[in-house]
Amino acid sequence: MNYLKDKLWQIEELGFDSKYLGKTESIMALGNGYLGTRSAAEEHYTNERRNTFVAGTFNKFDENEVSELPNIPDLWWMDFIINGENFTLEKGKVSNYSKRLNLRTGELTREFEWTFETIKLQFTFRRFVSKARRHYLSSLVEIKNLAEQSARIQICSGIDGQVTNSGSQHFTEGEKGLIDGRFMQMMPRTKDSKIDFVFTVAHDIKAANVSERIEMGRRQIFMNYFFDLPSKESALIEKRMSVYTSIDNDLSNHQAAAIRQTAISEMKEIEMHSFDDLLNESSRKWEEIWNKHPIKIESENFKDQLAIHFAKYHLHIMTPAHDNRMNIGAKGLSGEGYKGHTFWDTEIFMLPYFNFTHSDIAKSLVTYRYLGLDGAHKKAKANGYEGAQYPWEAANPTDGEVTPVWGAADIVTGQSTKIWSGFIEQHITSDVTFGVKQYIDVTGDKEFAEEKAYEILFDTAKFWGSRLEYNTEKDCYEIRDVIGPDEYKEHVNNNAYTNYTAHWNVTYALNLAEELKENQPVLFEKLNQKLELERVLSDLEQKVDKIFLPQPTEEGIIPEDDSYLEKEVIDLSNYKAVDGVDGLFHDYNLEQVNEMQITKQADVLLLLYLFEGLFSHELKLKNFDYYEPKTTHDSSLSLSTHAILAADLGKLDESYEFFKKACNIDMGEYMKSSDDGIHAGSLGGIWQMIVFGYGGVRMIEGQLRIEPHLPNAWKELTYGFDYQGQSITVKVTSDGFELTKEANGADITFISKGKNYTLKDRLQLS
Amino acid sequence: MNYLKDKLWQIEELGFDSKYLGKTESIMALGNGYLGTRSAAEEHYTNERRNTFVAGTFNKFDENEVSELPNIPDLWWMDFIINGENFTLEKGKVSNYSKRLNLRTGELTREFEWTFETIKLQFTFRRFVSKARRHYLSSLVEIKNLAEQSARIQICSGIDGQVTNSGSQHFTEGEKGLIDGRFMQMMPRTKDSKIDFVFTVAHDIKAANVSERIEMGRRQIFMNYFFDLPSKESALIEKRMSVYTSIDNDLSNHQAAAIRQTAISEMKEIEMHSFDDLLNESSRKWEEIWNKHPIKIESENFKDQLAIHFAKYHLHIMTPAHDNRMNIGAKGLSGEGYKGHTFWDTEIFMLPYFNFTHSDIAKSLVTYRYLGLDGAHKKAKANGYEGAQYPWEAANPTDGEVTPVWGAADIVTGQSTKIWSGFIEQHITSDVTFGVKQYIDVTGDKEFAEEKAYEILFDTAKFWGSRLEYNTEKDCYEIRDVIGPDEYKEHVNNNAYTNYTAHWNVTYALNLAEELKENQPVLFEKLNQKLELERVLSDLEQKVDKIFLPQPTEEGIIPEDDSYLEKEVIDLSNYKAVDGVDGLFHDYNLEQVNEMQITKQADVLLLLYLFEGLFSHELKLKNFDYYEPKTTHDSSLSLSTHAILAADLGKLDESYEFFKKACNIDMGEYMKSSDDGIHAGSLGGIWQMIVFGYGGVRMIEGQLRIEPHLPNAWKELTYGFDYQGQSITVKVTSDGFELTKEANGADITFISKGKNYTLKDRLQLS
Repeated sequence: MNYLKDKLWQIEELGFDSKYLGKTESIMALGNGYLGTRSAAEEHYTNERRNTFVAGTFNKFDENEVSELPNIPDLWWMDFIINGENFTLEKGKVSNYSKRLNLRTGELTREFEWTFETIKLQFTFRRFVSKARRHYLSSLVEIKNLAEQSARIQICSGIDGQVTNSGSQHFTEGEKGLIDGRFMQMMPRTKDSKIDFVFTVAHDIKAANVSERIEMGRRQIFMNYFFDLPSKESALIEKRMSVYTSIDNDLSNHQAAAIRQTAISEMKEIEMHSFDDLLNESSRKWEEIWNKHPIKIESENFKDQLAIHFAKYHLHIMTPAHDNRMNIGAKGLSGEGYKGHTFWDTEIFMLPYFNFTHSDIAKSLVTYRYLGLDGAHKKAKANGYEGAQYPWEAANPTDGEVTPVWGAADIVTGQSTKIWSGFIEQHITSDVTFGVKQYIDVTGDKEFAEEKAYEILFDTAKFWGSRLEYNTEKDCYEIRDVIGPDEYKEHVNNNAYTNYTAHWNVTYALNLAEELKENQPVLFEKLNQKLELERVLSDLEQKVDKIFLPQPTEEGIIPEDDSYLEKEVIDLSNYKAVDGVDGLFHDYNLEQVNEMQITKQADVLLLLYLFEGLFSHELKLKNFDYYEPKTTHDSSLSLSTHAILAADLGKLDESYEFFKKACNIDMGEYMKSSDDGIHAGSLGGIWQMIVFGYGGVRMIEGQLRIEPHLPNAWKELTYGFDYQGQSITVKVTSDGFELTKEANGADITFISKGKNYTLKDRLQLS
Repeated sequence: MNYLKDKLWQIEELGFDSKYLGKTESIMALGNGYLGTRSAAEEHYTNERRNTFVAGTFNKFDENEVSELPNIPDLWWMDFIINGENFTLEKGKVSNYSKRLNLRTGELTREFEWTFETIKLQFTFRRFVSKARRHYLSSLVEIKNLAEQSARIQICSGIDGQVTNSGSQHFTEGEKGLIDGRFMQMMPRTKDSKIDFVFTVAHDIKAANVSERIEMGRRQIFMNYFFDLPSKESALIEKRMSVYTSIDNDLSNHQAAAIRQTAISEMKEIEMHSFDDLLNESSRKWEEIWNKHPIKIESENFKDQLAIHFAKYHLHIMTPAHDNRMNIGAKGLSGEGYKGHTFWDTEIFMLPYFNFTHSDIAKSLVTYRYLGLDGAHKKAKANGYEGAQYPWEAANPTDGEVTPVWGAADIVTGQSTKIWSGFIEQHITSDVTFGVKQYIDVTGDKEFAEEKAYEILFDTAKFWGSRLEYNTEKDCYEIRDVIGPDEYKEHVNNNAYTNYTAHWNVTYALNLAEELKENQPVLFEKLNQKLELERVLSDLEQKVDKIFLPQPTEEGIIPEDDSYLEKEVIDLSNYKAVDGVDGLFHDYNLEQVNEMQITKQADVLLLLYLFEGLFSHELKLKNFDYYEPKTTHDSSLSLSTHAILAADLGKLDESYEFFKKACNIDMGEYMKSSDDGIHAGSLGGIWQMIVFGYGGVRMIEGQLRIEPHLPNAWKELTYGFDYQGQSITVKVTSDGFELTKEANGADITFISKGKNYTLKDRLQLS
């Protein structure tokens, strides 16, 4: 990838190499939260992944598979046949190749010259997914003939419904046809979830003496355009595309026939605007996002500034802000990985960005969890518990658990291996609570708290009450047989992260109950009726002080779980020096790693970061020094936590190394890392490293803390956030930091280095 | 395509051109009747079609689609990564490229040298589908390093279940695993028909210091092999593959678990043989076919001899001779075209070859129609008729009609167009009868006649009895609203071919009834009980003489249907001078063609050929001269009929032109013609043109006729056939012809040029 100091909004690939198709498709993905699409080329390549997903349109291929986001028919498809030769960058000579994404406007550009035998053409491809019109996509292609002789051009462009999710087909073929002689439409339906889709495509071609022929193949409809392109002349083809579904919440009529009409009407309106007008309209919507709390980093490394543009861009294209029945997938909408499912990644990694900067979007995301109570009840019941046990993987909120049960076969025995996360990776329930609590603390959204958040907070505590297992010998409540954040360790007892967060969840519910009983008895009674709170709380009160919280050893180390510290320690430094964990798993198999003190990702350290108020600086330091060398960062959720904790602990150089590595998870050179899609959690992590890590912002037990500390490479950092309805901007230099807020709101109190401060409109601290 | 005078068993492509992928995949397809596979390259191309089908394993994707043969997971897949570069013939320099099929042995070879940057490798690919072991496929790849420096090779080879039928996925993912550390297995199941498949693959690699790693992706399992190939050295990889299904009739236990064991056991046995041994074993089975009635043509054009090798080869790889629940698809097993369905093509075009040379295979094919009575009853009942109305398209014999009801959308209205063939292309029923009758006449298989054929013959006549429509005005029985062989004309009345063949079907049944009543009263009574014959026959007797048979006009022309001769005549000669009908349909649409005297394929002329005894030479001549100029041959079933009829009529030069064109339907240069698969009917046509056309063999009303006449380009023709259990060889020269038969059998009587002859062991006629 090519990054330029003076192009801080640009991701660029120079020179074509088909090995990087997967990477550029992902990191240059386009979208608007309603839909997301990989930036696959117009023409085809054998190792491409032509994926486009519409948020929330889950379908289940068969009873052996779980719901996933279906890969919709390919709209970008355009093949070129020049003098009878299929055009591909694999053959001939390619020069001045550049593929680049403008993060600021969401425009993708690809341009190059192609020479093959006597053909010499210059191609320029531009496209965008409209941020202003959620259903609309646009593509503009210019072909210039650089050769001395004219070229015979055939363009084949349309809708290709032969695409699948790696072989699983979610759609019926559906009707297809040409409306009014110019609008191609295709109307497939998801087979199980019965969602109707309407795709509409129209072309506008500028070339002399074009002849055209429509063709319809199986699951395909496309136009063929034929024309001669004289020497030194150019031709232009504009492709206008739209996507609608019968679950769209901006439609008044959800019948396929009505949707077809709506799509045609919109297309007719759009025809009156130029590509550039439509792009500008979309860019203006993007400007609104960029103007909201822009982050400015004066760094020795310009990529740091680029990284936060990159992260925010992707956080917005992947987030279905328009519909609270939907949430963010672990790969956003940029790949088939994780099937579009929502994990704890949302609450712990992406939600904080929205909580602090886009409370409207954050509200939609937490509302999804409220709607998900139904699914969480299903899961609790199925597992013999009560209350709300959130699914490890979530699709439609009411679905409950959708984690696949069976994974790849064991390569030795040939038997399928069971995926345990859906059963025993239970910290997701307190993670959701954590996110919801942060939302109400940061936004001060009382209405949401009273109508939805408190119910979640009580209902999850109710689950934990039923989940706790009494150990008569030790007279305590344990949580046995779980997977913690460190997924190398399956079936462990008393994972520290799980137990502490469950304890926090229960404690918080008990405190909240006290408060409500006193201040909002009507609300409390309502919740009591719904959740049997009196019974539940009395049970929790009996148990809470006996929940087993793994205590530090004599050396001050909090055991990751009951058995971790007794396992073998090996030196991982050589494995950690290189990208990926191939080296480790070349030498050891998963069973062996399970028996060693090797941690996949921040686990105890994540606990120390998220609940910093519970632990001393010294304890954190000891645990950081203990666990970091044992952590492989074999999850994209890991590095940002280590970066922030290291910054908290004053290890700023070390922190900055983590920061750079974390930014490179997708932006770096590692070829295959983004093939299945972008790493959504790590993008949230980039924002957190900057604002929480170096900006020093934290919510601790309902209290705002601001304690910046910049890495040496940074001269100045400016960031902003919303806090309980007010907008705060923080400018940090090596000398100190300055806070400003809108003039009219209430004073804001916060802590910094143990002291309380009050921000009226401006405050300078050293 | 490159054809050589001294390689009369070889189909070859010289020089790589990705535009011809579809063609060579089809015409060089491999198979053994159990399965058929397109000869797609090991490595991938964007416009390839990687299809493999197992006969009879029909599945229906959803309620909007019809049953089709599912494209099974790709076993041939092998990707090569050389010094980190994906190998493809689209890039670098390719020299000495040859892809060729040995029709005699069924071996496919592909070889070339590939130069890319500093890489220079010689590749040799060999593969075959065993004719001796129906479940077994084999691939052998040799890579020689021609460069001065060593090359780093990665081979990625396994089973890819992501393939679909143009986007429709028929399989569940199924289990997959590695058995005994070396046998990859994948076990998908068809979703609707619930057929279990077991695929087993093992590799044997000969190279130094190979490291390997197994990978499992979604619907994929594959091995990665890594090694350095020193300058001037070679590496060899052998891939052994097998395919089993739970409907295989050679299995004693049809449970998936048992099949897996069977497959592994077979693979272990196979491992003890070399690639060449296994190929030789398969070739010996092919020799048995080649030794059965070899056809020798001494022609000015060596391609004539090659064409019959080509035709026979494909007729055998596409025909599921092993299982009478299965029949031949219109594209054999070589493409998705026509979904693997069986049409009238079988009885009218392919079956005669088997009737006359492989009566065991013919018996299996006609038995399929006997089993198909169930389906034919269903269809008759659904349409308000009685008896057996055979489906226009057939899949499993008991399915009944499987012709798709809706076709491509009308490009103007955007509405789907109805496909009428399944409803009104009704001549299929008498076509089936014709084939069955020919089978019993040629083979003299009395047991089949009594147990199955007579029932078909009566039951189809019963259908026609119920189908006839009385015209009070004309006091006759008509067959209105049909499609005849000329599919340009939909909804016509009294199509000559349909009416005459229906009349023949009824007449034959009446005559047969008389004969059985007299000679086999017990059998007759049995059939009477089953089919209510007495009632049916008495009804047919009332009707038979009033069935409307279109009579010649004053000019001696039999009208194709009631309205044909009143339609406009246009000069087609310019359109007919070029391949295909694109020109015609550029100037006229289908509706316009429907209103003109334009015929898609032999229709009246086919009637004159098949029922030659009913029509005079003069009438045939007049009709040939009338209809030939009006026929576009826009069906691969047309040219061979014109060739034979022209030969019958003494137009030998004209006939030979048709012959050459007919041979070129698949073997010719026309690039796209075979993309969807080989033209099965036209291959049967090649055999018929030689043996029926120039060899002059015919069965007329149960009587053998032999009346050879060679085209001028041919000096000598030798062919043979089986007749009522005896083997007859015929050698034709310009002077006359010589017949020989096995010494021990009964005398054989036949007609030639109006005279009766008796063949004892040898006979020379001038």
